[in-house]
Amino acid sequence: MSESLVIGADVGGTAVKYVVTDASYTPRVEGEIFCDPTDPGHTLDDLAGTIRSRLGAAWGDVETVGFACAGIVDPVAGRLGRAPNLPGWEGTDLAALAGAAFAGLPAVLANDVNAALMGEWRLGAGRGCRDLLMLALGTGVGGGIVVHGSLLVGGRCGAAELGHMILDREGPACGCGNRGCLEAYASASGLMAEARRRAAVPGADLDLVAFCSRTDADPRGLAALAVAGNAEAVDIYARAGTMLGLAVGNLVNALDPDRVIIGGGVAQAGDLLLATCRAEVPRVVLGERSKSVPIVLADLGPRAAALGAAVMALDEVAGG
Amino acid sequence: MSESLVIGADVGGTAVKYVVTDASYTPRVEGEIFCDPTDPGHTLDDLAGTIRSRLGAAWGDVETVGFACAGIVDPVAGRLGRAPNLPGWEGTDLAALAGAAFAGLPAVLANDVNAALMGEWRLGAGRGCRDLLMLALGTGVGGGIVVHGSLLVGGRCGAAELGHMILDREGPACGCGNRGCLEAYASASGLMAEARRRAAVPGADLDLVAFCSRTDADPRGLAALAVAGNAEAVDIYARAGTMLGLAVGNLVNALDPDRVIIGGGVAQAGDLLLATCRAEVPRVVLGERSKSVPIVLADLGPRAAALGAAVMALDEVAGG
Repeated sequence: MSESLVIGADVGGTAVKYVVTDASYTPRVEGEIFCDPTDPGHTLDDLAGTIRSRLGAAWGDVETVGFACAGIVDPVAGRLGRAPNLPGWEGTDLAALAGAAFAGLPAVLANDVNAALMGEWRLGAGRGCRDLLMLALGTGVGGGIVVHGSLLVGGRCGAAELGHMILDREGPACGCGNRGCLEAYASASGLMAEARRRAAVPGADLDLVAFCSRTDADPRGLAALAVAGNAEAVDIYARAGTMLGLAVGNLVNALDPDRVIIGGGVAQAGDLLLATCRAEVPRVVLGERSKSVPIVLADLGPRAAALGAAVMALDEVAGG
Repeated sequence: MSESLVIGADVGGTAVKYVVTDASYTPRVEGEIFCDPTDPGHTLDDLAGTIRSRLGAAWGDVETVGFACAGIVDPVAGRLGRAPNLPGWEGTDLAALAGAAFAGLPAVLANDVNAALMGEWRLGAGRGCRDLLMLALGTGVGGGIVVHGSLLVGGRCGAAELGHMILDREGPACGCGNRGCLEAYASASGLMAEARRRAAVPGADLDLVAFCSRTDADPRGLAALAVAGNAEAVDIYARAGTMLGLAVGNLVNALDPDRVIIGGGVAQAGDLLLATCRAEVPRVVLGERSKSVPIVLADLGPRAAALGAAVMALDEVAGG
């Protein structure tokens, strides 16, 4: 029996991750192709061709394509707005380009963190929740919000920019031009900036100085240093966790979600980050019963956004 | 022709404001009675008796009572939780008490700021919005959120505690025990604490010192001092407005509402407060189109919560 299939694709600055699933979300094929950040048409043709050749005859069963993109997405108009990592994709009518590449299949568009949240909500760490919050700690910090059982996009598609909640107007500089945003503390770049700041101080910890001088210094290496017992590395993660907890506490006071999911590469540090986060949240949250909101790690790993895009595409087929 | 009537009552620490309306929200009667913060049963009997005698034969047309209460409210269970200004009402089954006082009429319960938001949304400054945010600046700071066209209560009734968003962990002390909450800057008590702090400094502005020594010193008097040209008073309001704008900006980044309503007694200072607030918001908000979110004053004045309670009661009649 032939069955409806959907494609979920996660378009990042260097690669497009894709997955093709049926209604049970069992991946038929999955993989990754090179993404040309300056040329959406070429990349989409390449994606369609790759999937078509891998699916063979089952290509005819594909009904929709879901795209997750790093940037501001207008899901209704099918357009990509500000997308610093995808300069050639900015402002394009992605739904129309996708229709051209994918033989007229309808396309569904979402922000990448929103798509990851959809994936976690339906298939991962957020199953069963009605109100859900996600923070994705990567190079930057992205957010996603589910309220009353649906994704919060906002009237002007500007909702869930949770990485830029300002926690201290005199805090460290953020890439957005402000100071003291959550992203300036709890992103990969925020953690590394803090490590370098401490390493530059006279009398700095020598292991930290040695670590920061490596060209491959990254949050994973910093976490390894912390696990090996370096007190400075432990403290850098602990401070990031406290500021993460402050942001989560502020958001719980606003939204009172059933659960909070922490994802992204930086979250792989686990308790190095989450112990102080979990300690800070109940100090900030006012509602007695909301103080114990579960704060959990994401479940689906780097496939979350592609799977979530497939979920959204399948919802569209089912709903329409 | 007899018509359905509903009662809306706003239970505060010293008075209960009430309004009786028909489906067009035209008040039939309205007024205020003394509230005994230690005795809900007596107060409710008094309220029912007062309204009954004022309505006369039309009492028989009343179908529901809506209550707005200053405190944590579980609208589903009909219970009042933490309510510092209503110690005798805390933890009571208010729906049952109201049923006893109001001859078995069904009762609807809401937090007072949520009720005020419902009033503004349906009848005042928030008409026509799908996503809406309200901050009520009084003795403390309360919040209300409408998302996707419905009021956000939260899974544990802990949502919209927006007054306790922490904006600076080393900021001024807040009544909740934390430091740097929005309430510590933009409430009546926050403004007056800042005025006294400045008045206590050696070489302080003499007009500010004289103002702070008055026993009736309040935000209204501080606003009058500012309007009269006192630079310290102007700056105290301007700083509160900036911190309010920081909080609003953080919330717009999270929720991207169609409009933001600022209410409560402190908001009567108008541009003394709102000019810096409106200047700060676009500096914090990331989404280009969300930077210009309208920030407006509340429309309904001190009747907002009673009217909103009537709206919620009428919705319940219509829905059930």
